Amino acid sequence: MAATPKVLVLNGPNLNMLGLREPAVYGRTTLKEIEEACVADGKRLGLAVTCHQSNHEGELVTWIQQARGTAGGIVINPGAYTHTSIAIHDALAAVELPTIEVHLSNIHKRESFRHLSYVSKVATGVIAGLGVQGYLLALLALAERLNPTTEA
Amino acid sequence: MAATPKVLVLNGPNLNMLGLREPAVYGRTTLKEIEEACVADGKRLGLAVTCHQSNHEGELVTWIQQARGTAGGIVINPGAYTHTSIAIHDALAAVELPTIEVHLSNIHKRESFRHLSYVSKVATGVIAGLGVQGYLLALLALAERLNPTTEA
Amino acid sequence: MAATPKVLVLNGPNLNMLGLREPAVYGRTTLKEIEEACVADGKRLGLAVTCHQSNHEGELVTWIQQARGTAGGIVINPGAYTHTSIAIHDALAAVELPTIEVHLSNIHKRESFRHLSYVSKVATGVIAGLGVQGYLLALLALAERLNPTTEA
Amino acid sequence: MAATPKVLVLNGPNLNMLGLREPAVYGRTTLKEIEEACVADGKRLGLAVTCHQSNHEGELVTWIQQARGTAGGIVINPGAYTHTSIAIHDALAAVELPTIEVHLSNIHKRESFRHLSYVSKVATGVIAGLGVQGYLLALLALAERLNPTTEA
Amino acid sequence: MAATPKVLVLNGPNLNMLGLREPAVYGRTTLKEIEEACVADGKRLGLAVTCHQSNHEGELVTWIQQARGTAGGIVINPGAYTHTSIAIHDALAAVELPTIEVHLSNIHKRESFRHLSYVSKVATGVIAGLGVQGYLLALLALAERLNPTTEA
Amino acid sequence: MAATPKVLVLNGPNLNMLGLREPAVYGRTTLKEIEEACVADGKRLGLAVTCHQSNHEGELVTWIQQARGTAGGIVINPGAYTHTSIAIHDALAAVELPTIEVHLSNIHKRESFRHLSYVSKVATGVIAGLGVQGYLLALLALAERLNPTTEA
Amino acid sequence: MAATPKVLVLNGPNLNMLGLREPAVYGRTTLKEIEEACVADGKRLGLAVTCHQSNHEGELVTWIQQARGTAGGIVINPGAYTHTSIAIHDALAAVELPTIEVHLSNIHKRESFRHLSYVSKVATGVIAGLGVQGYLLALLALAERLNPTTEA
Amino acid sequence: MAATPKVLVLNGPNLNMLGLREPAVYGRTTLKEIEEACVADGKRLGLAVTCHQSNHEGELVTWIQQARGTAGGIVINPGAYTHTSIAIHDALAAVELPTIEVHLSNIHKRESFRHLSYVSKVATGVIAGLGVQGYLLALLALAERLNPTTEA
Amino acid sequence: MAATPKVLVLNGPNLNMLGLREPAVYGRTTLKEIEEACVADGKRLGLAVTCHQSNHEGELVTWIQQARGTAGGIVINPGAYTHTSIAIHDALAAVELPTIEVHLSNIHKRESFRHLSYVSKVATGVIAGLGVQGYLLALLALAERLNPTTEA
Amino acid sequence: MAATPKVLVLNGPNLNMLGLREPAVYGRTTLKEIEEACVADGKRLGLAVTCHQSNHEGELVTWIQQARGTAGGIVINPGAYTHTSIAIHDALAAVELPTIEVHLSNIHKRESFRHLSYVSKVATGVIAGLGVQGYLLALLALAERLNPTTEA
Amino acid sequence: MAATPKVLVLNGPNLNMLGLREPAVYGRTTLKEIEEACVADGKRLGLAVTCHQSNHEGELVTWIQQARGTAGGIVINPGAYTHTSIAIHDALAAVELPTIEVHLSNIHKRESFRHLSYVSKVATGVIAGLGVQGYLLALLALAERLNPTTEA
Amino acid sequence: MAATPKVLVLNGPNLNMLGLREPAVYGRTTLKEIEEACVADGKRLGLAVTCHQSNHEGELVTWIQQARGTAGGIVINPGAYTHTSIAIHDALAAVELPTIEVHLSNIHKRESFRHLSYVSKVATGVIAGLGVQGYLLALLALAERLNPTTEA
Repeated sequence: MAATPKVLVLNGPNLNMLGLREPAVYGRTTLKEIEEACVADGKRLGLAVTCHQSNHEGELVTWIQQARGTAGGIVINPGAYTHTSIAIHDALAAVELPTIEVHLSNIHKRESFRHLSYVSKVATGVIAGLGVQGYLLALLALAERLNPTTEA
Repeated sequence: MAATPKVLVLNGPNLNMLGLREPAVYGRTTLKEIEEACVADGKRLGLAVTCHQSNHEGELVTWIQQARGTAGGIVINPGAYTHTSIAIHDALAAVELPTIEVHLSNIHKRESFRHLSYVSKVATGVIAGLGVQGYLLALLALAERLNPTTEA
Repeated sequence: MAATPKVLVLNGPNLNMLGLREPAVYGRTTLKEIEEACVADGKRLGLAVTCHQSNHEGELVTWIQQARGTAGGIVINPGAYTHTSIAIHDALAAVELPTIEVHLSNIHKRESFRHLSYVSKVATGVIAGLGVQGYLLALLALAERLNPTTEA
Repeated sequence: MAATPKVLVLNGPNLNMLGLREPAVYGRTTLKEIEEACVADGKRLGLAVTCHQSNHEGELVTWIQQARGTAGGIVINPGAYTHTSIAIHDALAAVELPTIEVHLSNIHKRESFRHLSYVSKVATGVIAGLGVQGYLLALLALAERLNPTTEA
Repeated sequence: MAATPKVLVLNGPNLNMLGLREPAVYGRTTLKEIEEACVADGKRLGLAVTCHQSNHEGELVTWIQQARGTAGGIVINPGAYTHTSIAIHDALAAVELPTIEVHLSNIHKRESFRHLSYVSKVATGVIAGLGVQGYLLALLALAERLNPTTEA
Repeated sequence: MAATPKVLVLNGPNLNMLGLREPAVYGRTTLKEIEEACVADGKRLGLAVTCHQSNHEGELVTWIQQARGTAGGIVINPGAYTHTSIAIHDALAAVELPTIEVHLSNIHKRESFRHLSYVSKVATGVIAGLGVQGYLLALLALAERLNPTTEA
Repeated sequence: MAATPKVLVLNGPNLNMLGLREPAVYGRTTLKEIEEACVADGKRLGLAVTCHQSNHEGELVTWIQQARGTAGGIVINPGAYTHTSIAIHDALAAVELPTIEVHLSNIHKRESFRHLSYVSKVATGVIAGLGVQGYLLALLALAERLNPTTEA
Repeated sequence: MAATPKVLVLNGPNLNMLGLREPAVYGRTTLKEIEEACVADGKRLGLAVTCHQSNHEGELVTWIQQARGTAGGIVINPGAYTHTSIAIHDALAAVELPTIEVHLSNIHKRESFRHLSYVSKVATGVIAGLGVQGYLLALLALAERLNPTTEA
Repeated sequence: MAATPKVLVLNGPNLNMLGLREPAVYGRTTLKEIEEACVADGKRLGLAVTCHQSNHEGELVTWIQQARGTAGGIVINPGAYTHTSIAIHDALAAVELPTIEVHLSNIHKRESFRHLSYVSKVATGVIAGLGVQGYLLALLALAERLNPTTEA
Repeated sequence: MAATPKVLVLNGPNLNMLGLREPAVYGRTTLKEIEEACVADGKRLGLAVTCHQSNHEGELVTWIQQARGTAGGIVINPGAYTHTSIAIHDALAAVELPTIEVHLSNIHKRESFRHLSYVSKVATGVIAGLGVQGYLLALLALAERLNPTTEA
Repeated sequence: MAATPKVLVLNGPNLNMLGLREPAVYGRTTLKEIEEACVADGKRLGLAVTCHQSNHEGELVTWIQQARGTAGGIVINPGAYTHTSIAIHDALAAVELPTIEVHLSNIHKRESFRHLSYVSKVATGVIAGLGVQGYLLALLALAERLNPTTEA
Repeated sequence: MAATPKVLVLNGPNLNMLGLREPAVYGRTTLKEIEEACVADGKRLGLAVTCHQSNHEGELVTWIQQARGTAGGIVINPGAYTHTSIAIHDALAAVELPTIEVHLSNIHKRESFRHLSYVSKVATGVIAGLGVQGYLLALLALAERLNPTTEA
């Protein structure tokens, strides 16, 4: 029997504030609850999910690098670094893992400086605007790739 | 017991060629097989799925208009019209239904003229780069909104 | 006595939804009511008004072509095709009839992709932001050109 | 019985040259004749029309400011200031009166520096390319708003 | 002996107006005459030519799709859709046939919005500015590719 | 003992409308009250403050020119001319006096045509978004430069 | 009696070099001296000032987040991150505190890549070009908002 | 014998400051001296020269309009309005007189916002960078056109 | 009987390398062979063809100038100068001869700096992407113009 | 007595065609006549004028270089190289001589690709739109600089 | 005898992945091997080389600041921060040391977002596309500046 | 024993002026001295260096073409043609030799029109800002490629 594939769920700057600020806009779900849902859903899908959040671009780069050889896929919500970080783009390109980019909101409806995503240029797929569910759909997408027999 | 919500799955120009051309790139799944999978998955999720494809911008506009008052949500892969059709944008804005935009490929990795999506400006969510699975994740996303008790 | 000049009133995509959606924004007047008002006002101004609406760019092109030799002027609200259709631009240039472009809303106050009008490059005149009244002013403008003795 | 609403008709730089120069292009109607037609048409429509012309941006700003509390609507052909004057834009935004922007020629057919109108961003409606008739249609549009029972 | 290769000659919006309007500019040759010349020239070059014209983008897309497996090459004058249709671009890319893009006028001498051609990005070759002769040179170009022994 | 330095406080177009329009947005303070506060605060800071307002770009230019040799510093809120007046830019460059540019609102949060300031290119400093207090901080900034021993 | 409001004074990359480099340009005041002046001035204005400097974008983001619920306002000189950090923009938007952006130099007179400020889009006010005094004016501006009875 | 042709020499904003400010840059010649030299040189060349300067765009527009029918040519240094005034552009276009645009400095070596000249689009000729001599060369150029037998 | 019209066939920089480099891309035909084919085809079409190639922009300009009064038409493949030479553009405009621009490859499929052609702005027609055959089709196009009875 | 200063008059590509082509546009004066007039006028102004024309950018560069140490000033009409030659820009910058750029036509009224002049960035002055007279005014401008006592 | 000059060799994000990923593209040399070669080559050239790598922009900024007063020169490969970090630009500007920017690949051949380098605006020199050798050439360049008698 | 590889050192326009002009900026080294140093250094590195300079773009193209099959590598400082010559770009692409682009100054610190290099798009490596030493480092870089055992 194959080992359980590992999946890294990474969240970028300010996502640690989820649920604490502007609940009318972002809902009341906290990052901790999202991460727990990811771990639980991962278990159901046969994926061993590990979660990290950082406000530091460099720390996100390092975690992506460490995924190489240890993880089978990445789910990343790069927050504001989506639009400014070529370093994260290069790290993702270097590790060559299936990567799903997730955004809670539909970034195409927001300020024009959020319309460019460096991460989309290297991600396998992109899911935006579906709130917390986006993370779970991303895990489903990875599961199909890593455990082909998984049923959606 | 509530009625089964109806969902419209719309495909734009050239998607009728899926599976018939460049199988190395787009895979061997035909549009017919995608539509059958959508109907089957919809049934499993408690959604009554109807599918249409057209090469005509005007026909897509008309189908979207007709969804008003008859359907509960729309899954749309507008193909090339994604990037050029303000008419489809306006039709989606007018019907005010939960709408998930789907692209088989990750359009952000392709020619720059595919980076702008008029549809993203009015869609609830966007899923790109996940192939046929993107349609099924879109149905899942709609199911959660239309049948809140659905389990992903 | 001169024959009554014929005028074509053309409406583009989504204008068939008028009065049915977002009445708070677009008012409760339906397209049918606008067309009837155009016919009535035309009669008062000595113009024989015929009305068409289509979601298809090609159908609008064809109607414009058919106006050549049969109509004396055109009133056109091209809807979303205002901003994307060079084909309608070319058709209007080919028929060389007095043409008034009408928009219900003031397109210069809306999204920047609505600021360019291909149709304005060939229209005789443009009336925007005056709601249903815009059509009637357009007929008045044509009447003065086609029946010079008409009193505004 | 309600008092006769006052309407200000403002003309910007170089419009005092109308009829005096290039009659082949601009016709032989002088500004004085336009203003007299506006007053006469206003009277017929139940509007008390006052007319001003200035080559000074600041003077146009001042007249617009003075309309606040004294006039019910404004018809303005800002001439060249259409494309360069944020001050006129701000004055119109401040007085919050129904305002119709008029251009004798269709500015969208002319040099590209005439395609941007700061005034359109705050005007109620825009009428362009219909020559002197544009002023009268603008008065008609205001009349309908200020004297709702007026018949076009 | 090899079968006669089939060639599709497609004309886009407003080309059905050829010869009927502005003969001083576009000449007096009608589309019907061009199509007959294409068929006749095709016969001389060993090509079975079929001709279609449409004002509908979607219809042109469909004809291109149908060329797959039935025709050996395409001559297309996309008219105004040259500059706006990614759908036609994608259809041509999908059928992977030798394709010659033809324009009666030299589009590089016209308005700047005619300088971009989506079709050129996928066409084998482009011929512009040579009037009706452009179609015949295009057939010659295809003949050399489809019947290598053809003499120009 | 050194003479009291003179400071010119200039306000551009539409600032004479302050307090009279949209009090919800701009507050109820009138220009007259701002000017009186400037004079009073100036006195407290050892500055002789003179105030002018004009809707005319040329008048503002003239006042700036006249400051040369008579005033020690300038506080200027150029209103809409901030974004369009190279003439004011040149006048300020010519008089070479310490100049503080003030804006009541934070212009970087408003329409993009308000993001460019020609005046900022020659001003000593810029204060924006602090309402009426901005004028007083500007006087404080000048006082420190003109009466170095002034205590903030 | 109300508690003394807390104010965070944040300095971004390279501001720790102040006074140590290019004294001819930036003066001889060190960051330590600026921070001491801020604390002293804050005391005089009834504000409890805390100061931090970092070369790390992520650390600045974290400090801003921590201000939520603990501080009443923020003075921030984001240094080079002014022009590149959407993460700081988002952090400031999330904490929703009165925020004054300060720049020692007038950034509008410098290289064009310093003309865009992401921070200005969310700051309450902006003060630039007034050197060290800018920080003290910023504290004054906050004091008026947090201790309304403070005298400037 | 033909009457002496009249020439208008117009100077725009801030040119009244010549010789008074920055003599190292602009020299010590005052506007009065330039105007006297123009009158004297005009006399020598058989031209009756009249000079005006204004900081008001509207006043420059009015003087240009008045040249119609009274003057034979215009020499204009529009100062900062060179780059922002479509009103002056339109006035010059309306009077249809030989017009020479003069700039003391070579505007192409200065800030990029000085590289566009609206006036150049309608001027007969342009002379820049030759200081005061530029006015005299401009008069020479007009003289040749108005008094063809003048010797340069 | 009319004299045989002369046609100049000009090739620009690096076209002398044809057939010698990258045969997989450009084929094995040398420039010499192309020129011989042009002469032979010209003879068949009743055209006296002369061929030149140069790496010097100035030499191409001179040859074009010399065509004036001696040749009846020009076929030109300007190579890299297509995209950078206004001098060749001006020379072609000056000689006013029927000119066909030829490119071996379809320049619209290559780097974006090859999408602009200064030569297309003055050429009669353009043929691109048809390899060596492009030259022969260009001669055919000229023959029809110079020897109207020539049969394609 | 000082030696007669030498002046180089350089003409760029296609100026050798003057008078031979399009006399209605460019007049009937040939380059030879212009050069003779320059020599004659130079003599009258105390300048020894030498004239060169080339279609080669490199030859113009070399002539400019040779002016260093041998000539006192340069009059240059760079023709099409005005807009494309940084090499001529650099040569002029290197020789550091008073240089007057001349254009027969007013390049600001022509195609937009003629609006940028690399030469203007290093020229002392620019004279455009005054035809052949422009050369003579340029010599006059140089004479004043090289023989300060010269009378215009 | 002069002390051995110190040189800092800094590597930015993802350069710690060298040799570990995509050896076909980046070769098999690891960062450790590059750093050892730099130290060894430095020793041969009379330079004391110290090496650092970080994924954190802030850490690179800090190391550059610390070079002030302790090192004689800097070799920096800023990786992705080349294109996005104004903070590194400012740090290099502040320390005013001879700085050589190195890139393993030729960034001008890669994605357009890699064509802008903020670091190049302050670096003494730039070496790109020469792989590991680039570091050694950079040390050679510094050696010549710091130990003028060094033989390349 | 392998033959000594030949290397071509090419210098573009105005580099023949080195050492003769602006020694304060460019130093006193002449082109002749640079070429002698290249030959000497080449000898030391086992390379047979030949040097050419031209002000003619076409001559540089020809020399590059001739390197094909005779030289093993190219060092090129294209001077001003760096930024404008697609012809040199194409010649370098055609000969497919290791090519090092050299610039004496750091072109990224200069005018923005020097920031684009067509040559960088095809060069193996780029060295800028290191003065004469840049040529010698370029030879070193080629030596390592052509004589792999060469010691830097």
